[in-house]
Amino acid sequence: MRVTSFPLATLRDTPSEAEVISHQLLLKGGYIRRVNAGIYAYMPLMLRVIEKISSIVDQELKKINCHKLLLPQLHPADLWRKSGRWEGYTAGEGIMFSLIDRQNREFGLAPTHEEVITTIASELINSYKQLPLCFYQTQTKFRDEIRPRFGLMRSREFIMKDAYSFHDSEEDLRNFYKIMAEAYENIFKKCGLSTVGVEADSGAIGGVDSKEYMVTADSGEDSILFTKSGSYAANIEKAISLPNEGKPLEEFNDIWIKTPNQKTIAEICKNNNFDPSQLVKVVIFKALFSNNKQIPVIACIRGDQNINETKIFNLINKNFGFNLISLSIIDNQSKNKQNLEELPWGFIGPDIEDKNIKEKGDFEAKWLRIADHSANKLDRFISGGNKADYHKVFNSLSSLDCQFLIDDIRNAKIGDKISSNSNETLIEKKGIEIGHIFQLGQKYSKKMNARFSDKNGNLKDLWMGCYGIGITRLAQAAVEQNNDESGICWPIALAPFEIILIPTNFKDSVQAELSENIYLKLKEKKIDVIIDDRDERAGVKFKDADLIGIPFRIVIGRGAVNDQVELVYRSSKENFKLSSDGAIKKFLTEYKVMYN
Amino acid sequence: MRVTSFPLATLRDTPSEAEVISHQLLLKGGYIRRVNAGIYAYMPLMLRVIEKISSIVDQELKKINCHKLLLPQLHPADLWRKSGRWEGYTAGEGIMFSLIDRQNREFGLAPTHEEVITTIASELINSYKQLPLCFYQTQTKFRDEIRPRFGLMRSREFIMKDAYSFHDSEEDLRNFYKIMAEAYENIFKKCGLSTVGVEADSGAIGGVDSKEYMVTADSGEDSILFTKSGSYAANIEKAISLPNEGKPLEEFNDIWIKTPNQKTIAEICKNNNFDPSQLVKVVIFKALFSNNKQIPVIACIRGDQNINETKIFNLINKNFGFNLISLSIIDNQSKNKQNLEELPWGFIGPDIEDKNIKEKGDFEAKWLRIADHSANKLDRFISGGNKADYHKVFNSLSSLDCQFLIDDIRNAKIGDKISSNSNETLIEKKGIEIGHIFQLGQKYSKKMNARFSDKNGNLKDLWMGCYGIGITRLAQAAVEQNNDESGICWPIALAPFEIILIPTNFKDSVQAELSENIYLKLKEKKIDVIIDDRDERAGVKFKDADLIGIPFRIVIGRGAVNDQVELVYRSSKENFKLSSDGAIKKFLTEYKVMYN
Repeated sequence: MRVTSFPLATLRDTPSEAEVISHQLLLKGGYIRRVNAGIYAYMPLMLRVIEKISSIVDQELKKINCHKLLLPQLHPADLWRKSGRWEGYTAGEGIMFSLIDRQNREFGLAPTHEEVITTIASELINSYKQLPLCFYQTQTKFRDEIRPRFGLMRSREFIMKDAYSFHDSEEDLRNFYKIMAEAYENIFKKCGLSTVGVEADSGAIGGVDSKEYMVTADSGEDSILFTKSGSYAANIEKAISLPNEGKPLEEFNDIWIKTPNQKTIAEICKNNNFDPSQLVKVVIFKALFSNNKQIPVIACIRGDQNINETKIFNLINKNFGFNLISLSIIDNQSKNKQNLEELPWGFIGPDIEDKNIKEKGDFEAKWLRIADHSANKLDRFISGGNKADYHKVFNSLSSLDCQFLIDDIRNAKIGDKISSNSNETLIEKKGIEIGHIFQLGQKYSKKMNARFSDKNGNLKDLWMGCYGIGITRLAQAAVEQNNDESGICWPIALAPFEIILIPTNFKDSVQAELSENIYLKLKEKKIDVIIDDRDERAGVKFKDADLIGIPFRIVIGRGAVNDQVELVYRSSKENFKLSSDGAIKKFLTEYKVMYN
Repeated sequence: MRVTSFPLATLRDTPSEAEVISHQLLLKGGYIRRVNAGIYAYMPLMLRVIEKISSIVDQELKKINCHKLLLPQLHPADLWRKSGRWEGYTAGEGIMFSLIDRQNREFGLAPTHEEVITTIASELINSYKQLPLCFYQTQTKFRDEIRPRFGLMRSREFIMKDAYSFHDSEEDLRNFYKIMAEAYENIFKKCGLSTVGVEADSGAIGGVDSKEYMVTADSGEDSILFTKSGSYAANIEKAISLPNEGKPLEEFNDIWIKTPNQKTIAEICKNNNFDPSQLVKVVIFKALFSNNKQIPVIACIRGDQNINETKIFNLINKNFGFNLISLSIIDNQSKNKQNLEELPWGFIGPDIEDKNIKEKGDFEAKWLRIADHSANKLDRFISGGNKADYHKVFNSLSSLDCQFLIDDIRNAKIGDKISSNSNETLIEKKGIEIGHIFQLGQKYSKKMNARFSDKNGNLKDLWMGCYGIGITRLAQAAVEQNNDESGICWPIALAPFEIILIPTNFKDSVQAELSENIYLKLKEKKIDVIIDDRDERAGVKFKDADLIGIPFRIVIGRGAVNDQVELVYRSSKENFKLSSDGAIKKFLTEYKVMYN
């Protein structure tokens, strides 16, 4: 390729809209152009990167016998109603774009394809003999992000690889899940990325077990908690740990404690000399379900701990057949408290009575009470007295005359122990999620009637897994992980070109001829080479080459008369003065090393 | 590839929903699956075909220095408002799906990308030195078809290659248009299709000149008119020809002709012994514009000729700044005649007065009068008398006291001459449009402010062309052109596999071993080979191979013990008993011939 006919389109200034370095560099390097908030055009340089990633994905998935297909992007609403996900994905906080066609039929723009592929599988698969079977596609997906940001990291249109596997048993699913995990590790390694696989929340997809692949980077939106030894790693949304011991509360003569205007844990502790671990914090939520029903939720946790909203969302969702649409905190500042206006805000205790809820509309007048293990373990604690300016001493949650759902709804945090028989504590890093694998189990096959006959001729629900890689996100994460003050330093496998030839003065016929000569020799070796044949100053060419991040450069300057050129490594900045054949030879050796 | 791990998914019965043979075969062969009306999943076999077509397109477009990129599918409404196309594409008969996001912003699902690419070009291109420049992409497009049919021929989601070129002069555009036309011919030839390039209507895209590429097939939705010599070929929507001479009308004493209840050309001719060519037919239309304005149109044509609605639509659209949304015929049967209830239906003449239109709402109370050349040329003719049961004799349209827009609005038809100095007449065939190239001129660059500085430093509007190929439609058209009673007969360049190996009994170890042997030898030669290693009857395997249409087959049967196999050509059904190496050798010779 020649720069004169392959427009680079680099920018002089750093676009002010971009917050993270990778977003800045992709814009500045002319890789992407913004068309609308969270919507980008992938320019020719970027498409080359995308195609390289896709091709690595294809190679590795082919090895484990996955079949590539292409599913539609427009999904009829009925299919999503069948799985029960239409409302959750389109109403309220739903992230699926939806539309109505000229004949008044509803469609969604697919963010994921469980419904479509499960329907196809239900028609395609009859017998256990056809299993296991795994299909995948690489395709543009849509997500109605309310705050698209960080370029391709959180955009509204993005390219995903999504794979779906079908099995005759849970064991076979677990087995294939491991095979896929290995394929994922190979893919990321081949891409030249350093990633970490962590236990993850499976979110609205549902399912049994799931793992995320993270590129660690300070700009990452995800928090990963892990032990130094690597024995444990999980997304903070999912991480499970043990809180510190806490300070036991001594026996108390009075049950009532007057706490005028002391509405926070900090205020109470300060005024009464308590430790936060001696209190139980109460948080009120409103849960909205797909049938429009609303339920008030009271969540209890030890005063020095914090509630993990993902965990509590999943817990409620699971308990109500996966029909929870949204979960929002209600407090004294909430504009619309609905039927909860008369609660004694700041002084609510775990045993607040149902009669405090007004009966009106679809709002259930009965608390759903949830307690974290940390609260449930306390033999004695202080919490709201359910009347203004009073807290109370309680003798354990179990002593109360109300039912609690006990589970882990706590945010793990730095310094926590991972288990009672280990001294390892958690440390935190930020990460960018680029892949996610799930064991879906039979959730979708049950809903979509996707069955097969087993060895004995009995009809059984298919076991399913699903596996995603964010192709465009991976590309940007690679930039986030590989850059310096001059621009991008692509891993060789993802670079749009492997080497760039820069004649410092292309009008000089000796330089031009030698450059062409090297160019043809590299082309012959099937190298992705680009030659900067512009009539520009050498400085401009060097700057562009550094910015777009081509791993190797051969500079053809005044030494051309003596067949002397310079081979430069983009990343390490090492450089070597060599004969033209010497430079080619050294490059061919080095670049093979880089690929391995 | 092995059939045991590459699920074929052929169907036993022909799906009743499919009307045309290619649609039936793609469904029956397991190439596609219907997800919704006009929405299909491309199964692994189909994706292989699509990838082969895309790769041919990439090769040929790369040769003429086009740059591949990928543009977004979600387009902000504002961009389309800027070009003036939003209303026409989303309101009324508009074929663009549109949606509103969570923040109440409007978006369209792109059927085409002039707005986006012109905006990007306006930012990217500064100087004539960067020109010409051509970008293209291969991508799923959307079209809200009211009657999706014929499978991938007229679907709501389909894959297109769309290219957009930018030039510093009309001359350069015309020059590149020719280069692109050659690339198109190469692409279709490489795909193994026989196509015909015809003059075409440029439709809502607008622009100067355009050409369609058609695969001729009886099931085609387009009518092509052409001369036997090939000197002329055009889509019927665009074709221009000369009507026959017609019979001149003799002088007449009476001006008024009583024609009680004679409301059609046929009735008048029959009752009064006229020839249809002696009459002028009048058709009333209602034109609806994007600003909601409505205009009544009266169109006049010689009585034996027919009006071409595409031509009249384009004529009006051009005259009103490309803001026409729809054009509908109003006649006595129309339920809503709007302000035209009181016209003397069946007896309307070209000179009907404006006062016959009621003044009400946005409906203009003034006729837009349009006449075809065939009517304008008549020195004397009969037409409606503008009162019930009367026709009248007229002395030419130009003698009337009203203004006509004179143009070609006539349907060319079989038997017409193409010019006054040629004796060649038109014949008709049905065709499937698989490609379309346009000279857009400066329409979009003017609207989107896409300018460049010329050699003298003056800012000029860019000249543009756009060029489409329906990838999925091409695939199906190839099947329509290449099939027999047993199934598909793919041209080799598009076949998902080039050759299939069929051991008649895979449990026979000699057959299995010889098959594997041939399989490995072909893999080594980089042949796309599939082996049917199923434990099925030979008949089932033959039937599947014929149905999915693999061009070559090697049958490994009882002769395997003596290294005897059979090479069969799918299309011609020729077969050859040969040694295994002989069969491989003959195949390798034959398949190369097929590629050329």
